[in-house]
Amino acid sequence: MQNVLVNVNGEIQDWKNAKIHIFDRGFLYGDSLYEVARTYGGHLAFVQEHLDRIKNSAILARLLITQSTDALEKEMERTLRAFQNLPGQKHSEAYCRLIITRGVGKIGFGLSALLSSSQYIIIVQPLELPPQKQLTEGLRLRIVNRLRNDKRALDPAMKSGNYLNNLLAYLEAADEGFDDAVLCNAHGHVTEGTTFNLFYMRSGIIATPPLNIGILDGITRRHVLTIAKSLGIPVREVRFPKERLYEADEVFITSSIKEVFPVKCIDGNTIGKGTPGDTTLKLRSAFQDLVQAHMRKQKRIES
Amino acid sequence: MQNVLVNVNGEIQDWKNAKIHIFDRGFLYGDSLYEVARTYGGHLAFVQEHLDRIKNSAILARLLITQSTDALEKEMERTLRAFQNLPGQKHSEAYCRLIITRGVGKIGFGLSALLSSSQYIIIVQPLELPPQKQLTEGLRLRIVNRLRNDKRALDPAMKSGNYLNNLLAYLEAADEGFDDAVLCNAHGHVTEGTTFNLFYMRSGIIATPPLNIGILDGITRRHVLTIAKSLGIPVREVRFPKERLYEADEVFITSSIKEVFPVKCIDGNTIGKGTPGDTTLKLRSAFQDLVQAHMRKQKRIES
Repeated sequence: MQNVLVNVNGEIQDWKNAKIHIFDRGFLYGDSLYEVARTYGGHLAFVQEHLDRIKNSAILARLLITQSTDALEKEMERTLRAFQNLPGQKHSEAYCRLIITRGVGKIGFGLSALLSSSQYIIIVQPLELPPQKQLTEGLRLRIVNRLRNDKRALDPAMKSGNYLNNLLAYLEAADEGFDDAVLCNAHGHVTEGTTFNLFYMRSGIIATPPLNIGILDGITRRHVLTIAKSLGIPVREVRFPKERLYEADEVFITSSIKEVFPVKCIDGNTIGKGTPGDTTLKLRSAFQDLVQAHMRKQKRIES
Repeated sequence: MQNVLVNVNGEIQDWKNAKIHIFDRGFLYGDSLYEVARTYGGHLAFVQEHLDRIKNSAILARLLITQSTDALEKEMERTLRAFQNLPGQKHSEAYCRLIITRGVGKIGFGLSALLSSSQYIIIVQPLELPPQKQLTEGLRLRIVNRLRNDKRALDPAMKSGNYLNNLLAYLEAADEGFDDAVLCNAHGHVTEGTTFNLFYMRSGIIATPPLNIGILDGITRRHVLTIAKSLGIPVREVRFPKERLYEADEVFITSSIKEVFPVKCIDGNTIGKGTPGDTTLKLRSAFQDLVQAHMRKQKRIES
């Protein structure tokens, strides 16, 4: 792990020295929230959307963020600049993870046992993109047996440090040689992947599970919905069983890191011709244009 | 927080100095397991049962514990002795929490990204028991709207660092002034409390939810089942809706810290006469006798 910087409550350090209290709730209970943003041309994209979303996660987790949004954004920028000042990193794109924990406190549930206000950690490291082969060929996904967390138990819309559901789904898929996992709910409806939203296209119509099924309100997902509409492609947010994916003309996923990314096969069923679909590639390209326009606009505001 | 010691991978220190890596999976993903044991007469009770259970949690979490059971037990004992050597703690009973994390590694799911083997943390601090008033009067519990994690998503039998389901249930109950929360599953069946198993008695028969409903295999629960049988009290492990609790003659909970503990009311419904039931008190007393016998036996083995 080279060129990995961590900002712990304002102190920027090499990852090797970056530590937190054992009594931080984030460690004791996974009682933390997070967001992941990436840079384009050295600038963080959609920071406001990420900060808005972590505020929504905080409402769902009933976690009081004591840092201001402004302060958090400034610290993210400051950590990013420190990363860019490392030897050889000036022109590298970066991955930026913001983590907020409920604070340090005694073991136990009562929030009066908290000895500190919320803590923040910002990790900035070189952006690692999926291998080019995956992009050219498409991902091989597994619909795993493990169910998505029920939103009435632990809402997947809350991006939290309780991540074993995702990890165990991934391991189930990886065991059988798949690239990643997609989870269903107890009704057999497809929800989302371990770290991504999922879309399919059939007969010219795009479909994706609705937010109220209990999934992350993906930022890239939102943009793709808007782009599809602007391109005149009908979009439906509907519940569907996994078999619907097997019969799709195209399947793709969205995430802040992977953007719009093609899927080659699911559970061994080849999707369409087994190569990235035309609409998938069109949406990927349109999303990248949107990002560039967003970055230009952001730059104008800053200057 | 006075007299709180933390053993981090063999190094015993005051809690204030005890830290772990930001890149420890326990922090990034709540990717850790834990057990809580307490002392009686200065000796840890049921250590073997706790170590066996964490091994089972490890299977459910697919986490490889690289420390031997023997080494972990020795470190728990060593941390306990360090605690007892603190000024004024010689005769205090202690709370002992063992945490095992998957290790330190790069962000991402692939276990090949792990840079270290499993890490262990042992926290020893003065045992805090519930206030005497709660024991004399009984707990006031709330059946919360939040559902228990579905075992097909995240098995409650796995005692892990993914604890937000429990915390959010507790906060829902605490909001309305209740002492603690009990959770149901999606079928409306009672499962367990935030940190305890639940029993009720009606017409001389004891009932408790079965393990396969998706609950913790409580050590005190097991002993109570055995004790009840030996006392000739019929026990049923059955699924039941919350209304069954309202109509019970007695309700009690079990946990390693609270032992067998009476419940006074549930959702505002007074249980029985609103005072600890005779059978509850009999089981509590019998459990304490069993613990004493266990401690004497353990002492004989050690000497």
